Amino acid sequence: MKLIAESIDIGTRSPTVLLNEADAAELGVHALERIQLQRDGRTTIGIVELTDELISEGTLGVTRRLGHIDGPVEVSVAPQPNSVYYIRKKLDDIELEHRELERIVRDIYEERLADIELGAYVSAIYTNGLSMEETMHLTSCMANIGETISWNDSIIADKHSIGGVAGNRVTPILVSIIAAAGVKIPKTSSRAVTSASGTADTMEVFCDVEFSIEEIREIVKETGGCLVWGGAVNLSPVDDQIIRAETPLSLDPKGQLIASVLSKKKSAGSTHAVIDIPYGEGAKVESLAEARELAEDFNRVSEHLGMTIECAITSGSAPVGRGIGPVLEAREVLATLDGEGPNDLRVKAIRLADLLFESVGVDADATEILDSGAAQETFREILAAQNGDPDVAVSDLSLGRHTHIVRADRDGVVTHINNRLVNEVGRRAGAPKDHGAGLELHRCVGEETESGESLVTVYAESSDKLADAVDLLERIEMVRVRHPDEALVDRV
Amino acid sequence: MKLIAESIDIGTRSPTVLLNEADAAELGVHALERIQLQRDGRTTIGIVELTDELISEGTLGVTRRLGHIDGPVEVSVAPQPNSVYYIRKKLDDIELEHRELERIVRDIYEERLADIELGAYVSAIYTNGLSMEETMHLTSCMANIGETISWNDSIIADKHSIGGVAGNRVTPILVSIIAAAGVKIPKTSSRAVTSASGTADTMEVFCDVEFSIEEIREIVKETGGCLVWGGAVNLSPVDDQIIRAETPLSLDPKGQLIASVLSKKKSAGSTHAVIDIPYGEGAKVESLAEARELAEDFNRVSEHLGMTIECAITSGSAPVGRGIGPVLEAREVLATLDGEGPNDLRVKAIRLADLLFESVGVDADATEILDSGAAQETFREILAAQNGDPDVAVSDLSLGRHTHIVRADRDGVVTHINNRLVNEVGRRAGAPKDHGAGLELHRCVGEETESGESLVTVYAESSDKLADAVDLLERIEMVRVRHPDEALVDRV
Repeated sequence: MKLIAESIDIGTRSPTVLLNEADAAELGVHALERIQLQRDGRTTIGIVELTDELISEGTLGVTRRLGHIDGPVEVSVAPQPNSVYYIRKKLDDIELEHRELERIVRDIYEERLADIELGAYVSAIYTNGLSMEETMHLTSCMANIGETISWNDSIIADKHSIGGVAGNRVTPILVSIIAAAGVKIPKTSSRAVTSASGTADTMEVFCDVEFSIEEIREIVKETGGCLVWGGAVNLSPVDDQIIRAETPLSLDPKGQLIASVLSKKKSAGSTHAVIDIPYGEGAKVESLAEARELAEDFNRVSEHLGMTIECAITSGSAPVGRGIGPVLEAREVLATLDGEGPNDLRVKAIRLADLLFESVGVDADATEILDSGAAQETFREILAAQNGDPDVAVSDLSLGRHTHIVRADRDGVVTHINNRLVNEVGRRAGAPKDHGAGLELHRCVGEETESGESLVTVYAESSDKLADAVDLLERIEMVRVRHPDEALVDRV
Repeated sequence: MKLIAESIDIGTRSPTVLLNEADAAELGVHALERIQLQRDGRTTIGIVELTDELISEGTLGVTRRLGHIDGPVEVSVAPQPNSVYYIRKKLDDIELEHRELERIVRDIYEERLADIELGAYVSAIYTNGLSMEETMHLTSCMANIGETISWNDSIIADKHSIGGVAGNRVTPILVSIIAAAGVKIPKTSSRAVTSASGTADTMEVFCDVEFSIEEIREIVKETGGCLVWGGAVNLSPVDDQIIRAETPLSLDPKGQLIASVLSKKKSAGSTHAVIDIPYGEGAKVESLAEARELAEDFNRVSEHLGMTIECAITSGSAPVGRGIGPVLEAREVLATLDGEGPNDLRVKAIRLADLLFESVGVDADATEILDSGAAQETFREILAAQNGDPDVAVSDLSLGRHTHIVRADRDGVVTHINNRLVNEVGRRAGAPKDHGAGLELHRCVGEETESGESLVTVYAESSDKLADAVDLLERIEMVRVRHPDEALVDRV
């Protein structure tokens, strides 16, 4: 059927097209089914929504996601994508071949899969798992799609945390240490998905984080490193789609996690990386044994890809650092580079940096680089290169002026701080969108407190959002305080 | 956030709302995320799509699916529906409790689940299965949601086929026989999803098929039966949603199938039903053992629901009847009621009707009712009650005028007719939308043919669609003809 395409101003995550109901009936398609648009020998897939009046008969409404399509197009029912059969095969718990995984990855990339099918894909991977062979293939396929960055250097360092720990803003410190030692580290980071701040959100307090690959190249040439948002470049774009499907169900199957992390590293041109695997109560990985197994799998897949990685198994049962939220974390990063800042954050950054030095075979000492001020200097150079103020001071970074203090309701010891709840309170308070929102922890796990002493200060930029956060705080136990006598054995 | 709702003419399968990007950023929601709209103490869930211009800041575009919502509404991020946790639990292969299944069914009904989550639900059920206990609970939950019909009769008969066989238009004949014996049989049927015609499509050749529950009651009161489209009434509406999610992946897990069929029967007020379970090469159930197991499960779940059913295990490896497509099937139905028509269709209708008589304990003989003309008379009464022409004759029903004949390419015996391909050719030829499109089989399985003899005639209402069907026919072997010497053992 020939239709006249016209742009329509709707932004969707799927490549939606609007069809008049009469045309849809003629074509024999229903809402959410796929049609293909052909013009000039190019084929585009669209997902159908119906309208009576918004689009008249003979016309096709093309939403933003499909790009600019104008004028006559040939429209027909799109064939079922082959990957649907392979997803079903995986649901039948049969190992997928290389070409089948490749087809799935390509169909996801080309947005040929509807959300129902994408939901089935992540469910199949979650419930039936991926073999080591499948994980390796999947990682390669994902890394080879979208943009890649190639460097002329034999060593490109990188760092990743599998996440789940509040605060934990190690990356800016580590990147500054590594770059200061003359090892290139072009770091792309994510924004928060379910946490109160991602590295990209925290860096945005200081400077711009959205750059093209060419601009990234310039920044790294100038400073040895960068701290940018990965979402602005098209590295392993399939990963973003898969994460979108995993998020609502909180699925994060091991094989897919490894493929996600390493495909991003590979497409960024990294040769060496340190992977932070936090484990413990409330972390993504609960036991040390699981953490070790995951580390081994990471090692095997990276070997297959020709990358060298070091996995660091770290404590993940409580936040790292005392500030959670963009400005609070930015302040701690600056303070730590200044030789101050919370000790756990400092020690973790140093330890991971040293592991990375060891991995790339560079004889450098992270403590020395940090204490000499060299790391701080490099950090400020990166800020300048990313259009930030290189002379920024902690006092320039302002917090939300609405505050609430959480106080201990008894004398005792802090036995647990719940990462997930800390993040949730931070998000309710407005983080990461409101940079000045977040939480400051006054007591860490193992520290003593007295009834009435402040445990946490919550910051917000609006009183409404603060009230929202307080409302949640009143219903949960975010910080667990127990009498010293009962601190070791918790009643359930 | 307070927004002014206004209707926008877009018909979607999901409850889509259009948000201006500025408002979405303020709320912190992205495309495809859920928001809740509150007004007058009622809460509605909407799925977000974004726009820059179509909807201005401060306004919320409400699509048709959400009904009429106008004026100020309070908009906030919707909480994650609890059923997401239960779907994940099922993916972990843990049996679900009654209340958990109930929550899933209710969230599907209220459209609180996004497509990704619905995809995960059908995947979880498919890959990890449902226990007998779960199937029973699920069926009850599904039957109790949406509309139900209650009758003042102690016996309400019903019939269902699990599908997969082309042609097979047994229902109108069976309903006429049963109703003619004075047993009430208010039959709701589906339209074709992947086949060339459903019972509702075939009946539409004769009369209207969309009626309200009140109208159905009237028709049944008058004639003892009806032959209407189930989609026009809201019986077990969750079933429709689940089928929509199963279709793209061709998933049809046993427990869900039983729940789908029996919840529809239960909510229609049926007390007795015969279930047609076709088995064989290319059917939904491939082996006799599987068919028996399915029949046993059907029996156990129906017992739990307080229904009496009889399962008929029938041959499903080839089409039943010789016509496939709305008009071709309608002609055969009329012919069979006239004492003519293909023998397999006649015998199957009689056999299933006798089983149903046995089940309800009515001493009647289907052959007698059919041969006496009583069934035909009842059928014509139903046509009249459903606004059709009670005097319709086979010659009134016209076929598409574009035809193509498939000829045998050798002397031999027809060893197989592929149901799936027959349906696909029929759909390409325009069925079920074009009532006159379809296929007429001139040779059945086991019959001899000579090279050059016609095996099948394809009918279409447009030459384009005929060309489409012929294009497929040239690439496939829809009717398998083998030399008598090789008829029994097929080379693969």
